[in-house]
Amino acid sequence: MTELQFIEAFLRDNHEYVRERYRNRANVTVTPKAHVGDLLTEVDLTLQQRARARAAEVFPGDLFVGEEEGLAAYPEDPNARCWVMDPIDGTYNFVRGLYPMFGVSLAFARDGVPQAGGVLLPMTGDLFLAERGAGATLNGRRLHSSTVPALNAACINIDFSGPRSRATALERSDRLMREVNQVRCYGCAVVSICQVASGDSEAYIHMSLTPWDYAASQIIVEEAGGRASRLDGSPLRLFDEDLGVIFSNGPLHDEIVRLLGPGRQ
Amino acid sequence: MTELQFIEAFLRDNHEYVRERYRNRANVTVTPKAHVGDLLTEVDLTLQQRARARAAEVFPGDLFVGEEEGLAAYPEDPNARCWVMDPIDGTYNFVRGLYPMFGVSLAFARDGVPQAGGVLLPMTGDLFLAERGAGATLNGRRLHSSTVPALNAACINIDFSGPRSRATALERSDRLMREVNQVRCYGCAVVSICQVASGDSEAYIHMSLTPWDYAASQIIVEEAGGRASRLDGSPLRLFDEDLGVIFSNGPLHDEIVRLLGPGRQ
Repeated sequence: MTELQFIEAFLRDNHEYVRERYRNRANVTVTPKAHVGDLLTEVDLTLQQRARARAAEVFPGDLFVGEEEGLAAYPEDPNARCWVMDPIDGTYNFVRGLYPMFGVSLAFARDGVPQAGGVLLPMTGDLFLAERGAGATLNGRRLHSSTVPALNAACINIDFSGPRSRATALERSDRLMREVNQVRCYGCAVVSICQVASGDSEAYIHMSLTPWDYAASQIIVEEAGGRASRLDGSPLRLFDEDLGVIFSNGPLHDEIVRLLGPGRQ
Repeated sequence: MTELQFIEAFLRDNHEYVRERYRNRANVTVTPKAHVGDLLTEVDLTLQQRARARAAEVFPGDLFVGEEEGLAAYPEDPNARCWVMDPIDGTYNFVRGLYPMFGVSLAFARDGVPQAGGVLLPMTGDLFLAERGAGATLNGRRLHSSTVPALNAACINIDFSGPRSRATALERSDRLMREVNQVRCYGCAVVSICQVASGDSEAYIHMSLTPWDYAASQIIVEEAGGRASRLDGSPLRLFDEDLGVIFSNGPLHDEIVRLLGPGRQ
């Protein structure tokens, strides 16, 4: 079984569980975390426990990093074989029923670079998969990021959904927001990044995104022909200290980096 | 047949047509309008023609105002019996496949006040309906706006999706964005306003929204227990010159008005 096959099987096997829990979300146990609006559900915990247990069976010795249950520590050896999971990205949207925009994200990484990744959007049934060098697919159909070359025809997703990095995001994207045609903000990284992969939007920007939020989506965008970097254009490696990210269609990447500028020193 | 029955029947009868056209949107004819990103599809035109023809049969003599085909002029008599339609709200999202967030909006108004309204979200199948004094429903289930009383626990949808009013929206909502927990921006008024009605978010704010974009959603929010006003808190009447709108859960309305302030004179 390859890592990608593992990811696909896990996401398919857990699809109905997540859909059922979402539909009955009035009965789902929700625990606030450190910050208001930062929520943890029983669904996050269950999915992460299942993935971790299954990975330990199939790939014994691999590290496992995930958003919940104290597994959010970066691995001591950032170059080791490592599974990186966000069991529910967009938990706030899940809990409140916001459209609903949330997804399950599972990636396999080596040397701090995702090698295979999958994102499941349970309520639309969309399954995004990618393997390094082999392309990205949505429900089996090959994905291509957009060729839109100009910001005034572009749709850019800028994430200031949560309170923590909102002021920075608004300040730093000020010049960019004067140039682009459409702006969106969903409060769900995986939905936003996978839209870049499918060519439906041109870029996603976040000032402070942890690796489990984007590991799977990163390889999906890259294998669809798009680009990923830090805010200054430098390479994106999981487990860096830096948390700012840009995912783009490619042609607009350098201009976005330029307009975001160096930020406040 | 009551006006609400007319609205419900029209939306149900056209549901499958819109779903089919969305799925085959690569083959849908799209025409740019005055501004880049302002799009018109054959689906907008067809729906509006159908609604207008059917309203003329069932309610002869009623006025009809809609976003497309030169029907966007305000009625000479703003107090007349009038149908107000946005055939596809969120056309940009429809064309690009953004999540997909778009809806069909049809309302009946008298004296500049919506008396009955319906919003259909074709891709989720959600049908919102409301009649003045009789409550609002989602797929037959009674709706209640949220009781969240504090901005630091609130999710607010601020619309700076399009380029025209973005600078104003960012400037005027600056103080509000420092206070609220979650911010969203979908590029679709009907999805955003109906979330306020269903209690999934606390408010929706737009600096410049035309009546067909909100006529149906307004009565849905009000009948769910929420509030609607201009940005300064004054009553919202269709066909005013003023285009700024706030829809809220109720408890947060006055504080939002206060934080938006008077705007630049």
